[in-house]
Amino acid sequence: PAVDKGVDYANYFCTYAFLYHQKEMLSDRVRMDAYFNAVFENKHHFHGKTVLDVGTGSGILAIWSAQAGARKVYAVEATKMAQHARELVKANKLQDIVEVIEGSMEDVALPEKVDVIISEWMGYFLLRESMFDSVICARDRWLKPDGVMYPSHARMWLAPISSKLANQKMSDFDGTIDDWYNFVDETKTYYGVDMSIFTKPFTDEQRKYYLQTSLWNNLHPNQVIGEAGIIKEIDCLTATIADILDVRASISTSIFAEDTRFCGYAGWFDVHFRGSMQNPAQQEIELTTAPSEDFGTHWGQQVFLIHPPLNVGQDDELIIHVSMNRSQENHRLMEIEFGCEIRYSSGKLLPPFRNKFYIE
Amino acid sequence: PAVDKGVDYANYFCTYAFLYHQKEMLSDRVRMDAYFNAVFENKHHFHGKTVLDVGTGSGILAIWSAQAGARKVYAVEATKMAQHARELVKANKLQDIVEVIEGSMEDVALPEKVDVIISEWMGYFLLRESMFDSVICARDRWLKPDGVMYPSHARMWLAPISSKLANQKMSDFDGTIDDWYNFVDETKTYYGVDMSIFTKPFTDEQRKYYLQTSLWNNLHPNQVIGEAGIIKEIDCLTATIADILDVRASISTSIFAEDTRFCGYAGWFDVHFRGSMQNPAQQEIELTTAPSEDFGTHWGQQVFLIHPPLNVGQDDELIIHVSMNRSQENHRLMEIEFGCEIRYSSGKLLPPFRNKFYIE
Ligand SMILES: Nc1ncnc2c1ncn2[C@@H]1O[C@H](CSCC[C@H](N)C(=O)O)[C@@H](O)[C@H]1O
Ligand SMILES: Nc1ncnc2c1ncn2[C@@H]1O[C@H](CSCC[C@H](N)C(=O)O)[C@@H](O)[C@H]1O
Repeated sequence: PAVDKGVDYANYFCTYAFLYHQKEMLSDRVRMDAYFNAVFENKHHFHGKTVLDVGTGSGILAIWSAQAGARKVYAVEATKMAQHARELVKANKLQDIVEVIEGSMEDVALPEKVDVIISEWMGYFLLRESMFDSVICARDRWLKPDGVMYPSHARMWLAPISSKLANQKMSDFDGTIDDWYNFVDETKTYYGVDMSIFTKPFTDEQRKYYLQTSLWNNLHPNQVIGEAGIIKEIDCLTATIADILDVRASISTSIFAEDTRFCGYAGWFDVHFRGSMQNPAQQEIELTTAPSEDFGTHWGQQVFLIHPPLNVGQDDELIIHVSMNRSQENHRLMEIEFGCEIRYSSGKLLPPFRNKFYIE
Repeated sequence: PAVDKGVDYANYFCTYAFLYHQKEMLSDRVRMDAYFNAVFENKHHFHGKTVLDVGTGSGILAIWSAQAGARKVYAVEATKMAQHARELVKANKLQDIVEVIEGSMEDVALPEKVDVIISEWMGYFLLRESMFDSVICARDRWLKPDGVMYPSHARMWLAPISSKLANQKMSDFDGTIDDWYNFVDETKTYYGVDMSIFTKPFTDEQRKYYLQTSLWNNLHPNQVIGEAGIIKEIDCLTATIADILDVRASISTSIFAEDTRFCGYAGWFDVHFRGSMQNPAQQEIELTTAPSEDFGTHWGQQVFLIHPPLNVGQDDELIIHVSMNRSQENHRLMEIEFGCEIRYSSGKLLPPFRNKFYIE
């Protein structure tokens, strides 16, 4: 389905036009360290080379590329942030190397093909925002045959978790429904209109909001109660849009925590900077958004809570089927469905149950 | 400037598609009582008549109109809420009288002209959302020459206020700027990029956010420190879009509080249900959103804070010039500028100062 540019701007790009939002990303030390090290510990990929930064934002990755020795950097940015990026480039005296281009990657024409594409395109749970589409488009049009992608690889991870949020969200939901019944009574009493026909759609709406929308969370590692599994691996040099349109996988995971509550799933991602087969990195760098006590990121993890939680214990096994695809109404948002079977260590089986969530 | 329908939906209409949001309005007892009494204490305007409800939302005003004896009610709603409204009409057995039409008022064709237009079109400080445009459009196309508008009149009020929010917003702003300087230092130290060129635009952005954006607030009446003045009066039967495109007025107000702090301005509105000259109401009803201890509304007041507050006292006089118009980027949002001179009771004059705000 064709995407209306104006609507896409109102729903998505507009937030990136604020320095406040760029600063949030620039203050994420895990993210910054990874890209910084990826560039400066692999200067051979940049020295004398041409680079394309897809979605340059403040201009940071383009500037680092230039500082690492690039001959020419094209820095493409869809929002007015491009104008700030241009100022930053000038203030750092790199205007002869970095050319900031204001426009959608999809619409921009470069004067030459490039040796490196660098981009920070990752959204919540990797694929939210669907910005990797623009990187694929850039790569297919502008990367030389032997070019290198920064990052070069990405993976999506899933694990069962325990979380107090499950109870909280359930009680928020219950509260809102109690309040609804009061509202229906009062509206009938005071205003003579019976709204009880809305009870079902209102409940559905609120259930979606409180119980079926994924949550941002920075989990403590001990909230992960079973082995994490990989549900998607992406080679940024070869992946196609078809490859990322939906994510389907089954993983099996053993609970390693003793008597605990299985409250739902957490999803996160990592990306790797390995260069390419013909042109490998001197120093491979990883950026992970896994639960971590000291190295949390602004991405956190996406948390999908089931209601009610289930009691599980050591060596119980979960077989998890996951299927994620884009929302019909907004191609930058996702819908995800989980199916789960539990094989208890006692030998007992819990029949499969399914849960659907929205990544908004 | 032509408005892109898709963008307008993403920025504006979408929230009205949620029952949650309709419920907030339906739970505003001041609002509900006013419309309820306006309809049921003036049944002569509805009995046997044809009615148009512009933006019916849940359908409530259309249903009341039918219950008050209307022969036919056309209930127009742009969002999918129309489908819920249709269900509510059916559940209340009024489907032979109320016809719900899903569509923009601007695009809809009715089979006949109507005797009454009823609509709840008021946004924050009356004009935010610019929905009255759609009511004017409906009136000019579909109201009979001797038809009646519900509400029939509207007024905008302005008053000087005292508020602790002024200090809080200022310290939020200061905090964010302190943090910025840290960020610039760290980015230079750790990542070799000097971001100080962004200090000015970042400060401007944050000043707009913290200090120049109006706030929603339910003021206590004793926070109003001077006589409130009317800055706009609208006759809903005759007002044109040109009349409401900008609001310009000067008012003079005496401080009636003893030694206090002038922290800024509050804006609110009232609307009246008086019928028309040829066809007056039997019972005039008023809906006011003025500061009130017991009768707050979901509109609250819009608060515009000046920094720093000024010390004022009894009988000091403020001459306030106000000028409000629509935002260039979004015709449903407003920009407002205040000019103020103070004539102290001592005879001293404070030269005029100006403040600009965004109603977002
Ligand atoms: N198709 C596209 N064309 C141009 N810019 C795009 C784009 N899709 C996303 N962007 C921009 O890409 C940026 C992603 S955020 C990353 C910003 C910067 N590279 C950094 O690492 O700090 C946003 O500023 C967004 O506006
Ligand atoms: N031009 C237009 N055409 C149709 N509906 C419109 C419209 N502009 C605004 N609306 C709708 O008008 C409603 C305003 S809110 C008021 C809802 C209802 N009349 C009540 O009093 O409770 C929203 O549901 C909004 O979607």
